[in-house]
Amino acid sequence: MARAWHLKSRPNGMPTADNFELKQIELPSLGEGMVRVRNRWLSVDPYMRGRMNDVKSYVPSFQVGEPMDGGAIGEVVESNAEGFAPGDLVQHMSGWRDEAVVSARTAQKLPDLGAPPERFLGVLGVTGITAYFGLLDAAQAKEGDIVFVSAAAGAVGSVAVQVAKAKGMTVIGSAGGADKCAFVRSLGADQVVDYKAGPILKGLAAAAPDGIDVYFDNVGGDHLDAALALARNNARFAICGMIEGYNSGQPTNLRFIMRVIAARIMMKGFIVFDYFPRMAEFYSDMAPWVASGAVKSRETVVDGLENMPDAFLGLFKGENIGKMLVRL
Amino acid sequence: MARAWHLKSRPNGMPTADNFELKQIELPSLGEGMVRVRNRWLSVDPYMRGRMNDVKSYVPSFQVGEPMDGGAIGEVVESNAEGFAPGDLVQHMSGWRDEAVVSARTAQKLPDLGAPPERFLGVLGVTGITAYFGLLDAAQAKEGDIVFVSAAAGAVGSVAVQVAKAKGMTVIGSAGGADKCAFVRSLGADQVVDYKAGPILKGLAAAAPDGIDVYFDNVGGDHLDAALALARNNARFAICGMIEGYNSGQPTNLRFIMRVIAARIMMKGFIVFDYFPRMAEFYSDMAPWVASGAVKSRETVVDGLENMPDAFLGLFKGENIGKMLVRL
Repeated sequence: MARAWHLKSRPNGMPTADNFELKQIELPSLGEGMVRVRNRWLSVDPYMRGRMNDVKSYVPSFQVGEPMDGGAIGEVVESNAEGFAPGDLVQHMSGWRDEAVVSARTAQKLPDLGAPPERFLGVLGVTGITAYFGLLDAAQAKEGDIVFVSAAAGAVGSVAVQVAKAKGMTVIGSAGGADKCAFVRSLGADQVVDYKAGPILKGLAAAAPDGIDVYFDNVGGDHLDAALALARNNARFAICGMIEGYNSGQPTNLRFIMRVIAARIMMKGFIVFDYFPRMAEFYSDMAPWVASGAVKSRETVVDGLENMPDAFLGLFKGENIGKMLVRL
Repeated sequence: MARAWHLKSRPNGMPTADNFELKQIELPSLGEGMVRVRNRWLSVDPYMRGRMNDVKSYVPSFQVGEPMDGGAIGEVVESNAEGFAPGDLVQHMSGWRDEAVVSARTAQKLPDLGAPPERFLGVLGVTGITAYFGLLDAAQAKEGDIVFVSAAAGAVGSVAVQVAKAKGMTVIGSAGGADKCAFVRSLGADQVVDYKAGPILKGLAAAAPDGIDVYFDNVGGDHLDAALALARNNARFAICGMIEGYNSGQPTNLRFIMRVIAARIMMKGFIVFDYFPRMAEFYSDMAPWVASGAVKSRETVVDGLENMPDAFLGLFKGENIGKMLVRL
């Protein structure tokens, strides 16, 4: 018998452990084209908060009483699909559980890039793709730009900082607390703003006296407002996430939204899925960067399926540095 | 002696008549390359509100105790500049006054398009250029798009509606009150929402059951939020103005800003000056549209220099249909 986390109830505001329930599930029989996978690593991501609401969006909502899912890496233990054999490591979308039967068409064998498997949930996976195309495509960031990355110690932010440096940009990162700020500095950021030490607008104004050309938004709220306040002419904002608003249910108050006009700001929201067809482009830059150490990977690892909800809730308390993962 | 409106004091919130003072000014002598112009038409525009604040922006602030300025059309009455003769009609930036001495290099003779001179402050001038490039360039609107134009009975909005129709788009306009809504309908809008009759979000949801592809923003605030709520995937917003916030001094509350991400919305602020080099492109579409009646012009005309502040304050009370002008 496999075990999977189920959505027990929908949260109102900040989720709690009571919204989740770990239950046994019966796995389907191994039909033609299917593989049985023993999960090794589960991805823990802020976007999953949105799936706990009953709202139509770009990924389906979790259903009350049903198993949850998400990114995962596992080992094939039984295969009824051509090209897949026991021992193969695959990436797939049946996370939040220890074992799954999945269609081989929805599972990708990990490319042989000499990297440990968990990297494919982080810097070499969706997290890295998000940072890479968000910065270079959505925000059209280019060499010489002054780039502000919020939540720069987080999974996506920490990769965005490093991609920006690898491409010759000046980078200002924000993070909460001295440890995270030190981590962001270690990634090569030129300036780091501790948003817990004072208002982000004041901190950013000091760190970017000439303003910013690009903002990579993972936070929304006050961070977005500060970026609007300090944007230079023709600034470009990639809107990747707004974690500040995921649980609050409150409207976002923007004092500086009108600067969009005078500074001719371009804001662009994006979803990583839209870039999957351009994966080759991503690997051609990122694989050598990871191999050379130009882009480093950092994970916060929580052990045991039992602890998945705690790991998830930790995202909203800022408990992770880099990518949050659960190891089984 | 000429007379010019001066900024007497800076407003705090909504301006009042007390912020303005009509005083005599001494005109400079007619140096080489200068023309003396008797103004006929003065442009009255919402963006002038921003210039009453002491804030660095894309046009200089008005200075307390100094004459104000803005778009104007006048007749050359004396010329010391080659190519300019008494009787020539010119467009220039020394408005808010009855007479001016200006450098001929900053004055444009009106092109011969068979249109009355005041059109060059409206549909054939900055107003029209704003609507045209805001829609077609900033928002990248194209045939078949569902376009929402706020303040659609206003100067820029009423042109944007007509340009969108001329280019084969479906148009929803918002306006305040039955008269303005009837006017917007007369311009060819497919749907009109009276924002005084109920919340704009509700009205827009009913008028655009399938959502919107493009939003041309003249209002900000609740209108912008409703557009965010109803944007379809890959929607594009041209941010032209946010009149709702010009006097309030309050932050903008956005409940739906997070939809930028899921719907991959692109928002782009723009300033009409950036499009002046593309004037030929504008005339090649707009001149035939105006000649054929495909794009109609509507002005609200106030007579007399004395009444310029009232005309200006009327913009914020919604007293104008189409372009607000003062006739001397």
